[in-house]
Amino acid sequence: MSNGDIFVGETIGTAILILFGAGVCAAVTLRYSKARASGWVVIAFGWGFGVLAGAYTAAPLSGGHLNPAVTLGIAVDTGEWGTVWVYVLGQFAGAVIGALLCYLTYFAQFQANARDTGTGTTEGAADEPVPTLGVFSTIPEIRNPVANLVTEIIATVALVLPILAFGLTEGLGESGTLVLIVSLLVVGIGLSLGGPTGYAINPARDLGPRLVHTFLPIPNKGTSDWSYAWIPVAGPLIGGALAGVVYNAAF
Amino acid sequence: MSNGDIFVGETIGTAILILFGAGVCAAVTLRYSKARASGWVVIAFGWGFGVLAGAYTAAPLSGGHLNPAVTLGIAVDTGEWGTVWVYVLGQFAGAVIGALLCYLTYFAQFQANARDTGTGTTEGAADEPVPTLGVFSTIPEIRNPVANLVTEIIATVALVLPILAFGLTEGLGESGTLVLIVSLLVVGIGLSLGGPTGYAINPARDLGPRLVHTFLPIPNKGTSDWSYAWIPVAGPLIGGALAGVVYNAAF
Amino acid sequence: MSNGDIFVGETIGTAILILFGAGVCAAVTLRYSKARASGWVVIAFGWGFGVLAGAYTAAPLSGGHLNPAVTLGIAVDTGEWGTVWVYVLGQFAGAVIGALLCYLTYFAQFQANARDTGTGTTEGAADEPVPTLGVFSTIPEIRNPVANLVTEIIATVALVLPILAFGLTEGLGESGTLVLIVSLLVVGIGLSLGGPTGYAINPARDLGPRLVHTFLPIPNKGTSDWSYAWIPVAGPLIGGALAGVVYNAAF
Amino acid sequence: MSNGDIFVGETIGTAILILFGAGVCAAVTLRYSKARASGWVVIAFGWGFGVLAGAYTAAPLSGGHLNPAVTLGIAVDTGEWGTVWVYVLGQFAGAVIGALLCYLTYFAQFQANARDTGTGTTEGAADEPVPTLGVFSTIPEIRNPVANLVTEIIATVALVLPILAFGLTEGLGESGTLVLIVSLLVVGIGLSLGGPTGYAINPARDLGPRLVHTFLPIPNKGTSDWSYAWIPVAGPLIGGALAGVVYNAAF
Repeated sequence: MSNGDIFVGETIGTAILILFGAGVCAAVTLRYSKARASGWVVIAFGWGFGVLAGAYTAAPLSGGHLNPAVTLGIAVDTGEWGTVWVYVLGQFAGAVIGALLCYLTYFAQFQANARDTGTGTTEGAADEPVPTLGVFSTIPEIRNPVANLVTEIIATVALVLPILAFGLTEGLGESGTLVLIVSLLVVGIGLSLGGPTGYAINPARDLGPRLVHTFLPIPNKGTSDWSYAWIPVAGPLIGGALAGVVYNAAF
Repeated sequence: MSNGDIFVGETIGTAILILFGAGVCAAVTLRYSKARASGWVVIAFGWGFGVLAGAYTAAPLSGGHLNPAVTLGIAVDTGEWGTVWVYVLGQFAGAVIGALLCYLTYFAQFQANARDTGTGTTEGAADEPVPTLGVFSTIPEIRNPVANLVTEIIATVALVLPILAFGLTEGLGESGTLVLIVSLLVVGIGLSLGGPTGYAINPARDLGPRLVHTFLPIPNKGTSDWSYAWIPVAGPLIGGALAGVVYNAAF
Repeated sequence: MSNGDIFVGETIGTAILILFGAGVCAAVTLRYSKARASGWVVIAFGWGFGVLAGAYTAAPLSGGHLNPAVTLGIAVDTGEWGTVWVYVLGQFAGAVIGALLCYLTYFAQFQANARDTGTGTTEGAADEPVPTLGVFSTIPEIRNPVANLVTEIIATVALVLPILAFGLTEGLGESGTLVLIVSLLVVGIGLSLGGPTGYAINPARDLGPRLVHTFLPIPNKGTSDWSYAWIPVAGPLIGGALAGVVYNAAF
Repeated sequence: MSNGDIFVGETIGTAILILFGAGVCAAVTLRYSKARASGWVVIAFGWGFGVLAGAYTAAPLSGGHLNPAVTLGIAVDTGEWGTVWVYVLGQFAGAVIGALLCYLTYFAQFQANARDTGTGTTEGAADEPVPTLGVFSTIPEIRNPVANLVTEIIATVALVLPILAFGLTEGLGESGTLVLIVSLLVVGIGLSLGGPTGYAINPARDLGPRLVHTFLPIPNKGTSDWSYAWIPVAGPLIGGALAGVVYNAAF
């Protein structure tokens, strides 16, 4: 795989992942969405099938990592670090593009969120604008840096260690179903381990869209919460590296 | 594949798709349905497994496009336009048949919807008839032609670009699981990108059933909303062509 | 396949199907169940994964029909009628056994349903016993014999026609994933077409458990509703035969 | 497979299974979790995809049993008992580790559960601490030892008999999708048969985490309910052995 193919593959694949992932958060949390308040099962399957869509699309070009923590875990396992920077660059570019596409997809909803408070009526006042950061980036339920970091580390090990091990099951690659299994794994992580922090488990997934949220002129968008931003970057990177180490030791 | 096989395949396959898709909308929205008010997750999986049922059935005859936007994207990619008209004809015929089958399946529910207001009692008056167009065609949550069109374009690119790329993953075709992956992709699009417009992403899916809604003698059926009808046709066609162009450029 | 293998396979497979299917109806409708009121999505996936469990188990012995409508559709298609009686006998035996196993699994819940009205207190009177037939057999939302019959016919065609066509997709058999696709098809039928009648789509599934419901000493069990019993037998048989005819004409 | 590989595989795999399984129970039941009150469908898919994650990870080392009832059923079928003790040892070690990892993942939530009653205010008094045993181990809805035991036996037969039979379907092993089918089977058991007792169907899954619950210093953790602990051990062991016997007789 050439550096160009890797960059294009990771950019397109991560853009699709974030379009679906941020999209499902918009679908469930924004007003005037047909999927509003449809629950955690929708969030978890939406992100998982975003992995399915993005990783199958990227796979022929770059293998479809879509996540610096996955790239890091593979590098720790294989000892090959030469293309890591290309992967990560593509992943961040894709995450930014995906967040912009999500914004365009839900443009009218973002505008309506703002309008609710612009009327000055009692009705408008009763409909507080929904905080919009949750569409783009993760927010912990309880703000506790050490606990949040530990949660992200464990959840990322639970992502990357199985991905590394899946390669050992004969037939998954040959039948083309490997990415399907990874996408259901991501559904499972969301259902089981997403409760405390919203499962970033991917530095690009959190940091790219947070940048977009900061610079986009969304009315009444609320805080971009940069004081938390290091945790969904550091936690997944530690988790990805740890998974590579555990994998090398155990398998 | 002969033109006859293509037409029969697309007709049967699209009829099954619309039977399931319109069916799940009837199941969730009509009164006296066991699935009433069962939420967006039911809608998204119902449509996705409609693709699974219809496309696997059509595949041996026509390849199972079931969607003019998919046919268009493939034609832009391959440059082969000779059978496009047969595909599209079959897709519209199937969409009309599927909508009629859905009407027959939920016949008693459609009649009961009407009866509620025919009694003239206070109880009947309290139960307003449910608008029935949502069973057949898409309705935007916020009516904004430009935003609605953009949403349909992006959601269709997110359908057709991955479908084109899936063909590059070795093994999916050989193991017969390609259509399964496409159907889960459609579930994901519903969960993530269906919030603003109800995700037509298919001109035949929206236009065929809208015609049926217009001409069927459903009591108290409400408007067929033809002023919106061009968006779920134009958006998916633009999106399908765009996906073909992006695919040719990137892969 | 010997007649003995066919009978054993269909008996075990259908018993598992009904244990899961009746089980999920018990889980959602009976009091003192952890899954009570968990909605239609649970019903549809419970039945679908019952097909997965039962049909994969039966497949090596009998091919895993588990449904006289499927057996009939295959016989119409192939013209081979010699073992139909063995299949159907096994299917009814299995349905009876599965319903008994469901009763044993939820024994304490069935007893608690009865106790609620045995106390004579106001509290007990407020908790009316739940009708128990819905655990075993289907009940239409609107009682309309012609409409109910049409619904069952269409839903069964939507089951058997795709099953017949699935065999034409190369690779599904070789990769062992054919039954998986059928089970997701059944989930889809439940989500989309189950609203009006509860989707029997299988004469054994409805008649066997109805017999069990009639003879089991469940306290406060309510009616076994035999006046409706012919519809979920006749509808699926007509639908299965019709699917065989359509398949022979179109493929 | 060496004893070392078996032990390591079962330990890692069962740890992942319990991290996901206990995790999803924490996600749904604990306060300040984004998935709180998201329903039984989340529980069932969370446990099922925990099997997917754990068993695919363990498969290359140990075959991925993750459950003494499965190991027992296979031993009864094959007559090979030599490594049973290694499997079971690894499964219990993994279950303990998985429960500890779940506790760390939801550490802030467990602490917040306790704090609610530490304030002495009316508000705190209204927020009773949630019982925490349900995160770790199973609790019957109706306490009836015979009925609970029967439920666990039937549910475990419904797990182990299909698993044994799945090996007979050609292609599932070669395509690598066997574990996927098992994980969907586990989703189905949860949806259909989990209502009365919470479906332990695995002695290690219940006993290991119950030990952890007993010794962890969780504030306000409530009872560890040791009087019930024998049922989710004895039931699954009887069920696993019974499945092996039925399988040998029928196949």
